[in-house]
Amino acid sequence: MSELIISTIEKIEPLDEVAMERARVRQNSLTKPPGSLGRLEELSIRLAGIQGKSPPGIKEKAVMVMAGDHGVVAEKIGNWPQEVTAQMVANFLRGGAGINVIARHVGARVIVVDMGVASDLGQDANLVSQKVGRGTKNIAVGPAMTMEQAVQAVETGIELVTGEADRGLDIVGTGDMGIGNTTASSAICAVMTGKPVPEVTGRGTGLTDEQLQHKITVIGRALSVNQPEPAQPVAVLAKVGGFEIGGLVGVMLGAAARRIPVIIDGFISGAAALIATALSPRLKDYLIAAHRSAEPGHRISLEHLKLEPLLSLNMRLGEGTGSALGIFLAETAVRILTDMATFGEAGVSEGDR
Amino acid sequence: MSELIISTIEKIEPLDEVAMERARVRQNSLTKPPGSLGRLEELSIRLAGIQGKSPPGIKEKAVMVMAGDHGVVAEKIGNWPQEVTAQMVANFLRGGAGINVIARHVGARVIVVDMGVASDLGQDANLVSQKVGRGTKNIAVGPAMTMEQAVQAVETGIELVTGEADRGLDIVGTGDMGIGNTTASSAICAVMTGKPVPEVTGRGTGLTDEQLQHKITVIGRALSVNQPEPAQPVAVLAKVGGFEIGGLVGVMLGAAARRIPVIIDGFISGAAALIATALSPRLKDYLIAAHRSAEPGHRISLEHLKLEPLLSLNMRLGEGTGSALGIFLAETAVRILTDMATFGEAGVSEGDR
Repeated sequence: MSELIISTIEKIEPLDEVAMERARVRQNSLTKPPGSLGRLEELSIRLAGIQGKSPPGIKEKAVMVMAGDHGVVAEKIGNWPQEVTAQMVANFLRGGAGINVIARHVGARVIVVDMGVASDLGQDANLVSQKVGRGTKNIAVGPAMTMEQAVQAVETGIELVTGEADRGLDIVGTGDMGIGNTTASSAICAVMTGKPVPEVTGRGTGLTDEQLQHKITVIGRALSVNQPEPAQPVAVLAKVGGFEIGGLVGVMLGAAARRIPVIIDGFISGAAALIATALSPRLKDYLIAAHRSAEPGHRISLEHLKLEPLLSLNMRLGEGTGSALGIFLAETAVRILTDMATFGEAGVSEGDR
Repeated sequence: MSELIISTIEKIEPLDEVAMERARVRQNSLTKPPGSLGRLEELSIRLAGIQGKSPPGIKEKAVMVMAGDHGVVAEKIGNWPQEVTAQMVANFLRGGAGINVIARHVGARVIVVDMGVASDLGQDANLVSQKVGRGTKNIAVGPAMTMEQAVQAVETGIELVTGEADRGLDIVGTGDMGIGNTTASSAICAVMTGKPVPEVTGRGTGLTDEQLQHKITVIGRALSVNQPEPAQPVAVLAKVGGFEIGGLVGVMLGAAARRIPVIIDGFISGAAALIATALSPRLKDYLIAAHRSAEPGHRISLEHLKLEPLLSLNMRLGEGTGSALGIFLAETAVRILTDMATFGEAGVSEGDR
C-alpha cells in the first residue's frame, strides 16, 4: 500500500447522522404522504449524510471515464479488436459516444482518462493522460501488472478526483472503457465474492455459448496461475485487474474522503467497488448503484456490496452511461427535498399517521 | 358510447413498422455493441413506431394531471380528508408539489385539470376547469356516476389532449390527484383483470392492517352492488370509476389517435389504461409504463397490459411523478438515437457479430 492510499482511507468518515435526520424530518413535512416518493426520498437522505449537510447540493456533476487495455485479449476472449479502446477514447473526446449524449442530457461533464491504453492516443486538451502502462499483461499467464503499477493506478484515481474536488465537484459517476475488461472484472468478482467463475462470467459485448465457455476457462486459468487472495485487495488488482479498474478504485476512495457521493456504473465499476470497499468498508455508504447491468456478475457484486440499483434497463454498455442516469436521479432527489412545498407553506391538511 | 370516442378509437393506427425498422438499423450502426443500451434502445424504436418517423422527436413535453373527488370517502377508506384534493390542486398551480418539481427538472409542462373536484376551486389562469360533477357518488351504495357523465369525462380527456396536439405536443405523461382514488382503481383493476379484490388492494397513502381490511370490504361491496362487467368498459368507469380516471382514459385514446406516445404513471393511470385498452386493444402499443408503483394492483395491471415498467423506485405518490421521470428516459432514448456517432462517422472498428 502507499501513504496516499492509507491517508485517504483514514479520511473517509461515517455518514453525518444529524444531516440525515434533518433531511428525514424535512421529507416528512413535504406535501405528499410520507415515504410516497420511495427510493428518491431515501436517496435524498443518504446524499445529505454523505455531503454532511441538509439539504445536500448538486451543481457540479462529472462522470469520470477511465480507459485501459487488457493483455488477456491475446486469449481471444471477446469479439472486438483491441484498437477499439483507443478509437472509443477518441469518440469520447469528440462527443459522439453514448456517455457523451447522456451526460450532456443530464448536464454532467465527461472527464476522459487514459489509465493505460495500449496505443499512443496523441495530444488532446480534453484527454487526461495518466498511462500507468501500455495495457496490462495477459492474466492467463501471469499478473496483469506489478504491485507498484497497481498502487500507482489507485493513487492516480485519488489524485484526479481530489483535483476535481478542489475545483468544485458535488457528485461523481464512474465509467470505463477497455476491450477485455469484463474478463478482468469477472476474475475480480470471483475472488472477492467467492462465487464460482461460471456464475460471474457473462457474454460481455455479445459472445456465443462456445465463446462464453472459452472465456470461463481463461478466467479459471488466470485465477489458478495468479492465486489472488480476497484479503489482499491491491494484490488482486495487480494480479487480475486493470489500470482503469485501479483508477476507479482511487476515484471511489478519493471522492468519499471528500464527502462526494459516487454513482457507480455497471460491472466494471462494480468490480472496482469490490476492491475499494475491501480496502475501506466504510466507503460502501458513499456508493450509489445506478443500475443493474445485464452482466450476471454485476448482480452478484451488488448483492455482495448490499447495494440496490436505482434502474433496471438491461444496459451493458459501460462508459458511465448508467451512472450518468443515476446522477439525474440523485439530482431529482435533491430537488424534491429543496423545492417541494411543506404542508404548512401550501396550506394542505395532513392525514392521520 | 359516443361518436367522438368511436371516431377517436378508429383513428388509432398500428405502429409504423417502417419507422421502427429504420430506428433499429440506426441503433445497430451506433458506436456501441448492438443492444447494449438495452431498454433505452427498445424505447427509441417504439417511439419511432408511435410517432411514425425515425428518428422520433421529443421537444414539447407535458404531464396532464387530472383531479377528481370520490364519494366513497364517506366509507372512511383512507386517512386523508377530502379537502386535500382541492388543496393539492392549489399546490400544483403554485408549483410546490412533487410533480411540479420533477416536471421542471425534466422540462415538461404541467397541465392541471379539474375533472370533478368536490369543492369550488376558484379562478386560476393555469387551471383547466372541466368539472363533470362535484365528486363521484359513493360506489359502496350505487354507481359512481351516470353513463352520460362517464362519456363526458372520456370525451373531455380526448378534447384536451387533441387541443394540446394542435398546439404541438410530442409526448404526454398521465397524472392524477383524488383522495379515495386508489379505492376506485382497485375496483376497476379487480373487474378488468378478474383478480380477487384482496390481491389488487393496497395501503394507498398508508393504511394499517385493519384499515386495509375495511377498504377491501368496501370494494367488495361496490362490486356486488354495481355488478360491473369487463366487456362494458365505459360502464365500469360509470359504476366504480372516477371523473379523473375517465379523463385519463380520454387522454390515452386521444393521444394515440394523434400518434403521441403516452407515458403512464402509477396505479390510477394503470386503472385508466385497463379501461382504455379494453376500448382499443391497439392503444397498448402507444403506452409506455414509467414505473412500478408500490401498490400491489399496479403490478397486476401492468402484467395484464403486458407492459414492463422502466423504473422501480417504490414510488406511490401519483400526480404524474413517475410519468415525468419516464418522459426523461424517453427523451434520453431519442437523444441516443439522434446524437450518437455511427461506427463510420467515428472511425471505430466493428466487432464480429
